[in-house]
Amino acid sequence: MISDVRVTPILISDPPLLNCQGVHQPTTPRTIVEVVTDDGVVGIGETYGDTDYLSIAQALAPTLRGRPLTSLNGLFAEALPVAERVAADRVDLSVTASGLRGARSLRKFTHSVVSAFEVACLDALGHLVEMPVHALLGGKVRDRVEYSGYLFYKYAGHPGEPADKWGAALDPEGIVAQARRMAESYGFSSFKLKGGVFPPEQEIAAVRALYEALPGHPLRIDPNGAWSVSTSLRVASELDGMLEYLEDPTWGIDGMAEVARHTSLPLATNMCVTSVDEVPEAFAKGAVQVVLSDHHYWGGLLATRDLAATCRTYGVGLSMHSNTHLGISLAAMTHVAATIGDLRYACDTHRPWQVEDVIIRPHEFTGGFLDVSDEPGLGVELDRAALERLHRRWLDSDVRDRDDDAAMRRCDPRWETPTLPRW
Amino acid sequence: MISDVRVTPILISDPPLLNCQGVHQPTTPRTIVEVVTDDGVVGIGETYGDTDYLSIAQALAPTLRGRPLTSLNGLFAEALPVAERVAADRVDLSVTASGLRGARSLRKFTHSVVSAFEVACLDALGHLVEMPVHALLGGKVRDRVEYSGYLFYKYAGHPGEPADKWGAALDPEGIVAQARRMAESYGFSSFKLKGGVFPPEQEIAAVRALYEALPGHPLRIDPNGAWSVSTSLRVASELDGMLEYLEDPTWGIDGMAEVARHTSLPLATNMCVTSVDEVPEAFAKGAVQVVLSDHHYWGGLLATRDLAATCRTYGVGLSMHSNTHLGISLAAMTHVAATIGDLRYACDTHRPWQVEDVIIRPHEFTGGFLDVSDEPGLGVELDRAALERLHRRWLDSDVRDRDDDAAMRRCDPRWETPTLPRW
Repeated sequence: MISDVRVTPILISDPPLLNCQGVHQPTTPRTIVEVVTDDGVVGIGETYGDTDYLSIAQALAPTLRGRPLTSLNGLFAEALPVAERVAADRVDLSVTASGLRGARSLRKFTHSVVSAFEVACLDALGHLVEMPVHALLGGKVRDRVEYSGYLFYKYAGHPGEPADKWGAALDPEGIVAQARRMAESYGFSSFKLKGGVFPPEQEIAAVRALYEALPGHPLRIDPNGAWSVSTSLRVASELDGMLEYLEDPTWGIDGMAEVARHTSLPLATNMCVTSVDEVPEAFAKGAVQVVLSDHHYWGGLLATRDLAATCRTYGVGLSMHSNTHLGISLAAMTHVAATIGDLRYACDTHRPWQVEDVIIRPHEFTGGFLDVSDEPGLGVELDRAALERLHRRWLDSDVRDRDDDAAMRRCDPRWETPTLPRW
Repeated sequence: MISDVRVTPILISDPPLLNCQGVHQPTTPRTIVEVVTDDGVVGIGETYGDTDYLSIAQALAPTLRGRPLTSLNGLFAEALPVAERVAADRVDLSVTASGLRGARSLRKFTHSVVSAFEVACLDALGHLVEMPVHALLGGKVRDRVEYSGYLFYKYAGHPGEPADKWGAALDPEGIVAQARRMAESYGFSSFKLKGGVFPPEQEIAAVRALYEALPGHPLRIDPNGAWSVSTSLRVASELDGMLEYLEDPTWGIDGMAEVARHTSLPLATNMCVTSVDEVPEAFAKGAVQVVLSDHHYWGGLLATRDLAATCRTYGVGLSMHSNTHLGISLAAMTHVAATIGDLRYACDTHRPWQVEDVIIRPHEFTGGFLDVSDEPGLGVELDRAALERLHRRWLDSDVRDRDDDAAMRRCDPRWETPTLPRW
């Protein structure tokens, strides 16, 4: 039985990583959830921290008291009316469908919030019955999960701040140097370049440079839908044979389907298929060959397994997307990934870019892999001092939402909010 | 950890129920599985007992010793090579695709066998951690599961035997009397008639009689694919407004799709969609509006949840099919059904037709519902005396397979093995 639920907004440091919408801010919000049982066991979860998500999480938390810890299948249906009440006065759905997280909807916000509570319940349950989370999901089918190196164009530092430890990466040489360092530090075998930042020719050159510098390493590029169909096809043609897959080259199911019809490269997405509503049309049109699941988007670990089942049935590949996250979500990703037999590609992770965490003993990659924990629950321990420090930062700051566009204007006053396709 | 696995073939009594392929034999085989852990906990499962299934179960059992009880996701992949070795000399796949259980394949046999081991593992795990099976599947979303009354044309008794307690039902009056008795004894609200036995006009008359005798009760008819497309459409037209859905009127995806195009009645199936391979084509062609899942066919309770996820994504309804089964499988069905939010129809069950069981305190329907057990595991207890008695019957008999066709020849020497469509 759940006796208490704590929701703690935090701000975490984020390096000046570039994407088609702008640049990451110096700090970005996350929400940490703690579910406490009447036995005194605590389970932890993590999700987005922007106001839209936080307000739903704060409204939902008190409604969960008195619920069985194991009552996960009904969580979303119970959360939605709560979210609808919050939405009436606070949630902003007016943003057009060009955000980095795909189409915006109240259901999707609710799924993302519910995911943190579900993960926290599974963590607590695992502690109660002394079983790892993967065993609560039918058991692991592998002992370690592979992750890929996530390469970003980036500035050396935020405006007015010194360079961070990674320094600038604004050309092919910078990207290759970043990849080499990722390979040395973490052992990643495959690499993904966040594109849509520079004109396609420059990004093609960066992929070519990676291909030459790191032969035999699977490569991907993800411009977040910044290219037109014809630009996407030009890039696909130039990089055919060098890429493992092309991620979200263009916006929307029809555009992706048009690209897919004219290239042999598999198309991956975490933008045009981000909820079950989008699956039938996208699969019928052949718009995507790999869905990059994200347990936050889809509503938790059980929902991720549901998505995996549908992908398996339709012969569509599955891997995992990552947004800025900490060790709680990385543990959750690793557990659910370990239970999915046909996970064909190394998962994405932002972990190397985060200098802080809210868990004691953050994950360490070995040869690009994370071992799947067999400890009870998620197998991670909340660092209460860090949580308090990062929550204090949130209290002391007026940053409440991630806004890459506003951050970019602070770096470059001439920056104009892009419309898609940018190229 | 699994320390021992016991596989016990049994023969259970079965009344002379009619279908398009013949009549049920006096006895039919089932396989009972017991999984024993090194803590001495026992979990139980149940599946088909025909030779094809039993031989795989017997070969698989010893390979499971030493496995973690929670390692369920990998079970099928590990079982398939074992089944392939058995198949090389024993499994008969030569039967054409007109059986009552849909297309025959080694994968499907293996799924059916794996389902019993998976259920047994979940039962044992539930006992170990003191949680009901539904809680191991993400928790129940309802406290009781509705079942429908399964009406059969039937003889009074098997050849040379006295009438059973239900007596004969060979015309509309007999079917109505059976439905009334089912309603009185078990409280069922909805009723399904197993059709394909008599010419369609007689079965239409039976449904009309039910509709008039039991107004407001959802009705279904299932001729097991015995009708041509044009016969199916004629029946659909005659019974439109009286049926909740029409189940497997004709054989195969294309035939079902053709029927679906010309009727507003939803079509249900447990014959043309019985494995994931069949889903994409059937859904794309609109061949089925309701999939009748069966955790034996699909490979267990996790696999049933996977199917439910795909159906939900595609807006296809889900309910549950039943073949002759005992209380272990009924408990498993009830647990998984309790976890699926969008189960829209009352589930099928043969339970009222079985006079024996291998559990102590067999399920009792209240108002057509079964309460979802919150006891550890499946919440049922193996009746070892009954198991021994029914296994002894198997040892003393030469019945090894269900063969409705051969049983019918014993009732009616003029019987000719039907080819589909019969009408």
